[in-house]
Amino acid sequence: MIRITSSSNEKIKRVRQLASKASARIEEGVFIAEGTKLVTEAPSDKIREIYVSESCLESLGITVSASGVPDPSETGSITRAFLRIAQRLSEESIILLPDHVFEKISTMKTPQGMMAVVEAPGYSQEDLTGYGNPDVMPLLLVLEDIQDPGNVGTIFRTAEAAGATGIILSSNSADPLSPKTVRSTMGAIFRIPFMVSDDMPAAVRGLEARGITCYAARLDESAEYDKCKLDEPCALLIGNEGNGLSAEITDAASKGIYIPMSGKTESLNAAVSASILVYEARRQRHG
Amino acid sequence: MIRITSSSNEKIKRVRQLASKASARIEEGVFIAEGTKLVTEAPSDKIREIYVSESCLESLGITVSASGVPDPSETGSITRAFLRIAQRLSEESIILLPDHVFEKISTMKTPQGMMAVVEAPGYSQEDLTGYGNPDVMPLLLVLEDIQDPGNVGTIFRTAEAAGATGIILSSNSADPLSPKTVRSTMGAIFRIPFMVSDDMPAAVRGLEARGITCYAARLDESAEYDKCKLDEPCALLIGNEGNGLSAEITDAASKGIYIPMSGKTESLNAAVSASILVYEARRQRHG
Repeated sequence: MIRITSSSNEKIKRVRQLASKASARIEEGVFIAEGTKLVTEAPSDKIREIYVSESCLESLGITVSASGVPDPSETGSITRAFLRIAQRLSEESIILLPDHVFEKISTMKTPQGMMAVVEAPGYSQEDLTGYGNPDVMPLLLVLEDIQDPGNVGTIFRTAEAAGATGIILSSNSADPLSPKTVRSTMGAIFRIPFMVSDDMPAAVRGLEARGITCYAARLDESAEYDKCKLDEPCALLIGNEGNGLSAEITDAASKGIYIPMSGKTESLNAAVSASILVYEARRQRHG
Repeated sequence: MIRITSSSNEKIKRVRQLASKASARIEEGVFIAEGTKLVTEAPSDKIREIYVSESCLESLGITVSASGVPDPSETGSITRAFLRIAQRLSEESIILLPDHVFEKISTMKTPQGMMAVVEAPGYSQEDLTGYGNPDVMPLLLVLEDIQDPGNVGTIFRTAEAAGATGIILSSNSADPLSPKTVRSTMGAIFRIPFMVSDDMPAAVRGLEARGITCYAARLDESAEYDKCKLDEPCALLIGNEGNGLSAEITDAASKGIYIPMSGKTESLNAAVSASILVYEARRQRHG
């Protein structure tokens, strides 16, 4: 374990860049996970560095020996997870910070004092359609330009719970690896395969070519969602909060899908639409 | 129409209080709706005052005569709605503000220049169980301590779309009449009956006594949501984001209800849970 006390240290400057800039994350192929629970849910072989504040380490019941070795006096699950992560890392990849320096790198309103630099995952098309398991029926979510990081994160979280196999996002969507999106996924970012696509109509046509029926969420002229056959390989296409799906993407999909609405509501929140559709697929599959 | 140019004017101070303080809203029995679309969705007989910025009025194509009478040169829907609202109001209840003064009262990051002071609705128990219409099957959402205004607003919006008849909120929930919640409802706040309760277990027992089956959302030991009979008079009880429903409220409900989850997800977002459950009720009722 090393201790950094200056917020102008190069490591501190770099981690702030990783938190704030997608370009910095792409260049290094990493992202930031912040928060005790989130860090301990990250796959430990993908964690490259861990930053911990003095008060956080203390709250975990861990003291550090003169030689820099952490010594635990508690056995809580976060304490154990932290030690398991620390064991895999080299000395200089476990960084202890005074609270005021940790606050400089934190992306949270109320910092919990733990942050990890995690290797960005690289998934293949195959990963997205069933975790490489031929017994799994593909169920994808395809998100076009969903701008709100909280909505994108919530969709990841719900998609995992519904048993979706993968998520494709347009490159104009909220960055799935930004700290805010990552936090909103509540850990699902580490578990559900995803890809960002520059050419969404091509991605949709690619899915159709592989026998995965694509359902474009629409406000009219299409089948009610619970009448669609979602217990076969399928993808659910969800559009932008303001404008819905673009014509190009809707045209690339072989089917439409519609959530009926009572009253004067004109549309549903994007995360709500995605949740209702992906849970209807789950219901039909587990019926 | 009157014009106020000083942000220290008493009317300006008061409207800022109404935007920021629940106590001020309760005292006057009003709330704030901000945004051109939201204001024009408010029932015009409930609007007590309307504040408009100079640039907003201009964008609506409205000029004001020397005697203060608005004169439209456009016929867009927002322009027509604004004139319809203005017609019902007295001179001094239509307040024109320079943009910099409007910014002082605005609750939005990007102010659109229109805000209304709206009479707070007062609903009866009967309103919540079917808009006073005996042909309507009661479908309520009961929200315990949901803290995030965006989640509460999203639940109102989805509840209306699903055909819910009413919403009961615990008094520790996000204030349904705060500007942020109101905005997140996308207008549903004007249409779906709701009540805030100080004694939620009593409210739940009251529903049960009136033949409305209460389903407490739980993480285990209860029936899967799609196996529950939701096409009869029922209420769906949704708990706090962090802790779920309290034991008192769960005990007051005659049934449990459970959304199954795959993967390692421990829970769903409160608005997502509410949406999945209320849309399952809709599906069973319209199936």
